[in-house]
Amino acid sequence: MNIVKIGGNVIDDERLLSDFLKRFAAVPEPKLLVHGGGKEGSRLCKSLGIEPKMIDGRRVTDADTLRVVTMVYAGGINKRIVAELQKLGVDAIGLSGADGCLIEAKKRDPKPIDFGYVGDVEPEGVNVELLQTLLHAGLVPVVCAITHDGHGNLLNTNADSVATVLAKALSKVMPVTLTFCFEMPGVCADVNNPATLINEIHANELAGLIESGVVSGGMIPKLTNAVEAVNCGVESVVITSYSTLGDTNQGTIISL
Amino acid sequence: MNIVKIGGNVIDDERLLSDFLKRFAAVPEPKLLVHGGGKEGSRLCKSLGIEPKMIDGRRVTDADTLRVVTMVYAGGINKRIVAELQKLGVDAIGLSGADGCLIEAKKRDPKPIDFGYVGDVEPEGVNVELLQTLLHAGLVPVVCAITHDGHGNLLNTNADSVATVLAKALSKVMPVTLTFCFEMPGVCADVNNPATLINEIHANELAGLIESGVVSGGMIPKLTNAVEAVNCGVESVVITSYSTLGDTNQGTIISL
Repeated sequence: MNIVKIGGNVIDDERLLSDFLKRFAAVPEPKLLVHGGGKEGSRLCKSLGIEPKMIDGRRVTDADTLRVVTMVYAGGINKRIVAELQKLGVDAIGLSGADGCLIEAKKRDPKPIDFGYVGDVEPEGVNVELLQTLLHAGLVPVVCAITHDGHGNLLNTNADSVATVLAKALSKVMPVTLTFCFEMPGVCADVNNPATLINEIHANELAGLIESGVVSGGMIPKLTNAVEAVNCGVESVVITSYSTLGDTNQGTIISL
Repeated sequence: MNIVKIGGNVIDDERLLSDFLKRFAAVPEPKLLVHGGGKEGSRLCKSLGIEPKMIDGRRVTDADTLRVVTMVYAGGINKRIVAELQKLGVDAIGLSGADGCLIEAKKRDPKPIDFGYVGDVEPEGVNVELLQTLLHAGLVPVVCAITHDGHGNLLNTNADSVATVLAKALSKVMPVTLTFCFEMPGVCADVNNPATLINEIHANELAGLIESGVVSGGMIPKLTNAVEAVNCGVESVVITSYSTLGDTNQGTIISL
């Protein structure tokens, strides 16, 4: 089972996304795509006069923002990807976490900080049976990072976490490979220099890499997710460029 | 198999929608919901400065409008309905026509009038096998009126036509009832007077009713769809109020 996550910066660029989807179409089935949101959500919020609310540098998803990101992620981006994959001969089916109760998340505790309609996910919340039904029917799920709490609330969720939780849950019933694709060639010691690509990171090295500053910013949650996945039985975890998906010996392998 | 279509004016009102969804939750399975778009799409277009283009009083779906209605119908409205149905214990799964290639439509011929990204549907374009797989798994499809052409283009499609084409296609493999729900009690001789409800319309009466002006405006395509459905083997077709869904002896029955 191949789970691929594609990041927001690639989604924001029509040409890059199209290149990536051609590569994804060639990935052997069964497979599943998780996509991030890109900047379209923020842009639409701005156009509609919804001010971004930040606490400690992290975005708060209030009710208005949730409405916008649900439209953009589950509607605009998801259906564009699905239509494009159908054109490429991939029988894609777009899903949010609410659809078929695919991912039931927990609304984050408003204490100590109220981040609003944000969901945290655990493997127990994943509907593995639904995924098996869809995969068995030859479908390729395309999952956006909107989940629900089962009480009628949709929740904004980190796309890396969604890919990771799906990988963790499915790895209990089948061997899973998890590939995080983005615009970089992998984890680089110097993010401005692709030549500093790190070929392999062992799970027990992560803490040291964070401490020494080699891994920083947005790479910390991504690598934390990747390490969590290998620790929970996901067979192969790779962080690589959208443009080399499917090529072996590319990107950064995360291993035990 | 119960196919229910809910119209835009009910969707625009949170309270009415909630009342309707409670009634829909009580409809026996297997079942399927088709929803219209309401005015949210037009409002969002206006907020974003996208001018509505009309030809002969009919809306043109240009590329910008298509992006907006896809977000609103397949994202905002669809996922709100799915999350609410999940809360009510209905295992809803939201779909556009692109998902799992559920409905492949034909982009309307730009001659004589170019209506843009608008799709026309035929029963041959419906993926009956996918619907059977989902229904067999205990899922309740919630279908928005966005289809695709299989060549990467999403298409804006009339929601009554989507409900009708699904009913026609499914009636080839199982008995189907089709219920169009809206804010009126059914077809009324005087649209401003609910007491003028017509209890039954025979398929062969439609032409006369249109000619005499009893049926006019938006009721013409709705009734044309309804008559088409009974003519094509759909077992029962009813036009009724969202607030009486499930009550027998309510609304207007369309019969052969």
